[in-house]
Amino acid sequence: MDIPLSRIAEVVEGKIRGDNHKHISGVAPFESATQNDITFADNAKSLKQINKTGAGAVIVPRDLPESSKNLVIVDNVRVAFAKVVTFFYPHSKSTYSISSDGICSNAYIGKNFIRGKDISIAPFVVIQDNVVLGDRVILHPNVVIGDNVIIGNDVEIYPNVTILERCRIGSRVIIHAGTVIGSDGFGFAPDGEKYYKIPQTGIVQIDDDVEIGAGNTIDRATFGKTWIRRGVKTDNLIHIAHNVTIGENSVLVAQVGISGSVTIGKHAILAGQAGVSGHLTIGDDVTIGPQAGVTASVPDGKVVSGSPEMPHRLWLRVQRIIYRLPELKKKLSEIEKRLNKVEEKN
Amino acid sequence: MDIPLSRIAEVVEGKIRGDNHKHISGVAPFESATQNDITFADNAKSLKQINKTGAGAVIVPRDLPESSKNLVIVDNVRVAFAKVVTFFYPHSKSTYSISSDGICSNAYIGKNFIRGKDISIAPFVVIQDNVVLGDRVILHPNVVIGDNVIIGNDVEIYPNVTILERCRIGSRVIIHAGTVIGSDGFGFAPDGEKYYKIPQTGIVQIDDDVEIGAGNTIDRATFGKTWIRRGVKTDNLIHIAHNVTIGENSVLVAQVGISGSVTIGKHAILAGQAGVSGHLTIGDDVTIGPQAGVTASVPDGKVVSGSPEMPHRLWLRVQRIIYRLPELKKKLSEIEKRLNKVEEKN
Amino acid sequence: MDIPLSRIAEVVEGKIRGDNHKHISGVAPFESATQNDITFADNAKSLKQINKTGAGAVIVPRDLPESSKNLVIVDNVRVAFAKVVTFFYPHSKSTYSISSDGICSNAYIGKNFIRGKDISIAPFVVIQDNVVLGDRVILHPNVVIGDNVIIGNDVEIYPNVTILERCRIGSRVIIHAGTVIGSDGFGFAPDGEKYYKIPQTGIVQIDDDVEIGAGNTIDRATFGKTWIRRGVKTDNLIHIAHNVTIGENSVLVAQVGISGSVTIGKHAILAGQAGVSGHLTIGDDVTIGPQAGVTASVPDGKVVSGSPEMPHRLWLRVQRIIYRLPELKKKLSEIEKRLNKVEEKN
Repeated sequence: MDIPLSRIAEVVEGKIRGDNHKHISGVAPFESATQNDITFADNAKSLKQINKTGAGAVIVPRDLPESSKNLVIVDNVRVAFAKVVTFFYPHSKSTYSISSDGICSNAYIGKNFIRGKDISIAPFVVIQDNVVLGDRVILHPNVVIGDNVIIGNDVEIYPNVTILERCRIGSRVIIHAGTVIGSDGFGFAPDGEKYYKIPQTGIVQIDDDVEIGAGNTIDRATFGKTWIRRGVKTDNLIHIAHNVTIGENSVLVAQVGISGSVTIGKHAILAGQAGVSGHLTIGDDVTIGPQAGVTASVPDGKVVSGSPEMPHRLWLRVQRIIYRLPELKKKLSEIEKRLNKVEEKN
Repeated sequence: MDIPLSRIAEVVEGKIRGDNHKHISGVAPFESATQNDITFADNAKSLKQINKTGAGAVIVPRDLPESSKNLVIVDNVRVAFAKVVTFFYPHSKSTYSISSDGICSNAYIGKNFIRGKDISIAPFVVIQDNVVLGDRVILHPNVVIGDNVIIGNDVEIYPNVTILERCRIGSRVIIHAGTVIGSDGFGFAPDGEKYYKIPQTGIVQIDDDVEIGAGNTIDRATFGKTWIRRGVKTDNLIHIAHNVTIGENSVLVAQVGISGSVTIGKHAILAGQAGVSGHLTIGDDVTIGPQAGVTASVPDGKVVSGSPEMPHRLWLRVQRIIYRLPELKKKLSEIEKRLNKVEEKN
Repeated sequence: MDIPLSRIAEVVEGKIRGDNHKHISGVAPFESATQNDITFADNAKSLKQINKTGAGAVIVPRDLPESSKNLVIVDNVRVAFAKVVTFFYPHSKSTYSISSDGICSNAYIGKNFIRGKDISIAPFVVIQDNVVLGDRVILHPNVVIGDNVIIGNDVEIYPNVTILERCRIGSRVIIHAGTVIGSDGFGFAPDGEKYYKIPQTGIVQIDDDVEIGAGNTIDRATFGKTWIRRGVKTDNLIHIAHNVTIGENSVLVAQVGISGSVTIGKHAILAGQAGVSGHLTIGDDVTIGPQAGVTASVPDGKVVSGSPEMPHRLWLRVQRIIYRLPELKKKLSEIEKRLNKVEEKN
C-alpha cells in the first residue's frame, strides 16, 4: 500500500501541517520508523524529540511543538494511531479448504444449528446441539461450542477455546486462544469431612465489544449469570469466578483473579496479578494497583494499592517508610538509650 | 418438575415445619426466589430476614427462628442445598452423533483400548495406545489421553483437557476444560552456562472424588508420582509442580501455585493466589491466606497469612500497624525533638 | 537395561572409585534407590549420609567424603545425573496410526506445506497455509499451527498448543501442553469512554534450545517481535506480554508475569508468581524473588525481593522488623510515656 497523507488524515479525522501529497506505505514505532512510515508522538519526551524520528509523517496532538516534519494533528493521538494501524494492517482471514457454506468438512456440527451469513468454521471445531451463530463469525481450529450457546455477529474465536453450554456471547467479541468460558463455579458444601458439589446451573453472558485474552477461565454462575459487560477488555491468564459482574469498559490486566459474586463498576482498571476477595463491590472508575489484594469494597473513583489494599497515596508513603524500617528501628533503640541516660540523671 | 415438599425432605433427610404438600418446581437464591422455588438460609442475616424471601419453602438449620414460611429443617444447610440443587438440575449428558458403542466416529482410538460400560467419547478426542477407561466415563471434545493412562469409573473430562502418558485417574473425578495433567516437571541441571533437561520419568496420580478446575497445570514427578489425594478440589489456573502431594479433602482456590516436592496435609485450605515454596510440609487442617507466600513448613491446624507468611493473628496486628506507619514515623520524629530539648535542659 | 558402571562413567564423563563391573539397571532418588539403581549426592547432607542410601552406585563431586559405595566422580553432579536419567529413560515417541510420510490421515494440512525428514503429525493437528517444519518435528494431538509459521529441527509440541500466524520457533524447542504462542498483545487506545483495539502486527520469535511450560501465554509484538532467546526455560502458567525480550538461558518459574516491552538479560532467574511492570530493563544474572513486584529497572547481578522490590538483603532485614512491628509500636508508646514523665519533672 502506498497512501497519500491526505487519505490518512481522513481516516484519523486529522489536519495536516506539511505535505498533503507525501506518500506513506506503513506504520512503525517512533525509534525505527523510516521515510515511508507514519508514526506517532503523544508524550512530552517524544514530542520534544520529534525531529529525531526518521518517519515521513507523525501523528501529534493539537498542542504540538514546532517541527519541520509532516504532521497529522488529531484530538486523540493513540486512537488515531490505532485507526491508522488498522487501516494499514487489516485483519486477514485464514483460508481453510472450506466448502461454499463456510464450514470445513472436518468440523463437527450438532443438531439444529442456526447460522448467519459468511461464517467460517475451521477444521476440528465442535458445535454441539442447538447452537446459534450470527453473521461473519469466525471459529478457529479446535474450538468447542457447547449445547445451546448463542453467539452474535462479527465474533472471532481463536484456537482451542472452549465455550460451554448455554453461555451467550454478544457481537464484535474476540476470544483469544486457550480460554475457557462457562466452566463450573467453585461451589462446594462442606459436611465437616468432605465436600458436596453444588451444581452450577447458571451461565456466562459476554456482551458486545468485549475482548477476552488467552488462557482465561470464566466460570458460570451458580444461579443466574456471570456477566462481562460491554467493552470489557481482559488480558491473559485471568480468572473470573461464578456470579461476578464486570462493568462496561473495565480493563483487567494479566493474571488478575476475581473471586465469586464480586461486582465491578464501569471504567475500572485492575493492574496485573491483583486479586479481589469474594462478594465485594468495586465502584466505577476505580484503579487497583498491581499485585493488590482487595479485601473490602472500594467506592467510585478510588485508587488503591497494596495487599491488603489501602488508598494509593497512603500506600506510597507507607512503602517509602517500609524501605527505611531498619533505620527507624535503629533510631528507636538510640532514643531509648538516650532516654535511659536522661532518666538516670533525673 | 413439580415436587411436593415431603419428597424434598426425603432427599435432604430433613423435617418439615409447614405444608407437606406444598409443590416446588425449582431452586433459587434467597433474594430472587419465588413461590415455586425452594431456597436456603444459614447465616444470621438471612435467618433474621427469613420472612422477606419470596420462596415457597426455606431450608434452615435446627436452631431456626420463628417463621410462617414452610421450612425444611436439616443438620447441614449447605449440604442439603447442594443435594436439592442436584435433584432439580441433574447433569445432562451431551448427545453427540455417536454410535451404539458410545464412541464418536471422528474420535481417534489407539491400540489396545480397554473400556467399561456406557462410555461417551466425543468428536476429535484422541485416545492413544493401551488406555483403560472405566464405566460411564465421559470424554468431551478435543480431550487427549496419552499412552497407558488408566481412568476409573464415572469420570467426566471437559473439552481441550490433556492427560499425558501413564497418569492415573481414580473414580468420580471431574476435570474442567483446558487443564493439563502430566506435563514435565520443571527440572534442569545448570552447568554454569546453560541448562540440561532432567527427564521427568514419574506420573501424576489423581485419586477418587477429586475435582480439578479449568486451566490447571499439574506436572508429573521426576521419579515416582505427583499425588492428588481423595476428595481434593482445585479452582482455576492452579499450578502444581512435580512430586507434590495434596492431602485428602484439601481445597486450593484459584491461581494458587505449589512448588516442587511440597507435601500438603488433609483438609487444608489455600486461598486464592497463595504460593508455597519448594520442599515444605504443610500440615493437616492448615489455612493459608490469599496471596500468602509460604516460605517455611506449617504445622497442623495453623492459620497463616502474608508474604512471607506469619501466624494469622500476628498478621492482622501487623497490617493494622502498617497502615499507620506514616503516623508512627511522625511520632518518632516528635519524640526525638522532645528528647533533644530535654537533653539540652539537662 | 542392565549397564556396567564403566559405561555409565563414559556417559557422564566421570571416574569410578569402586567396582567398574557393577551392573546398574535404573536411576532412583537417594532415599528409595536399591542395589540395581544409581543415584546422586551433591549437598552436604546427602554426602554425609552417603553410606545410608541403598543405591548400587552414587554420582558424587570431586571433593567427596570417604565411602565404601561404588562412586562415579564428576565435575557437575546434577548435569551428570540429568545425563544418566536421559540415558536410562530415552524419550519414547508415540505410535499413532500414521502413514509412511509421518502424517496422520486425520490431521489437517494447509497449502504449501514444506517439511523436513522424519516428522510426526498426530491426529487432529491443524497446519494452516505456508508452514515450514524442520526435521524430526513432533506435533502431538490437537496442536494448531497458524499460517506462515516456521519451525526448526527436533522440536516437540505437546497437545492442545496453539502457535499463531507468522511466529518463528527455533530448533530443539519443547512446548508443553495448552500453551499459546502469538496471541494478540494487550494494546488498546482509550478515547475516554471506550477502547480502540491497536492491531498487533508483530510476531513471537523463540530461539533454539528453549523449553516453554504448560499453559503459558506469550503475546505477539505490536510491531517487531516478542523474543524468547536461546536456552530460556519457562515453567507453567507464565504470561509474557507484547514486545518483551527474555535473554539467553534465563529461567522463569511458575505463574510469573512480564508486562509489555520489558527486556530481561541473560541468566536471570525470576521466582514463582513474580511480576515485572512494563518497559523496564532487568539486567544479566539478576535474581528476582518469589511474588516480587518489580517496579523499576534492575542492574546486572542484583538480587531483589518484595513488592515493590528492594535489594534482597534489605528485604531480609525489613521482613524481620515487620514481624516485630507490634512490639516496636508498644515500645514507642512506652518511650512516649517515659518521656512525658521526664518532661513533667523538668
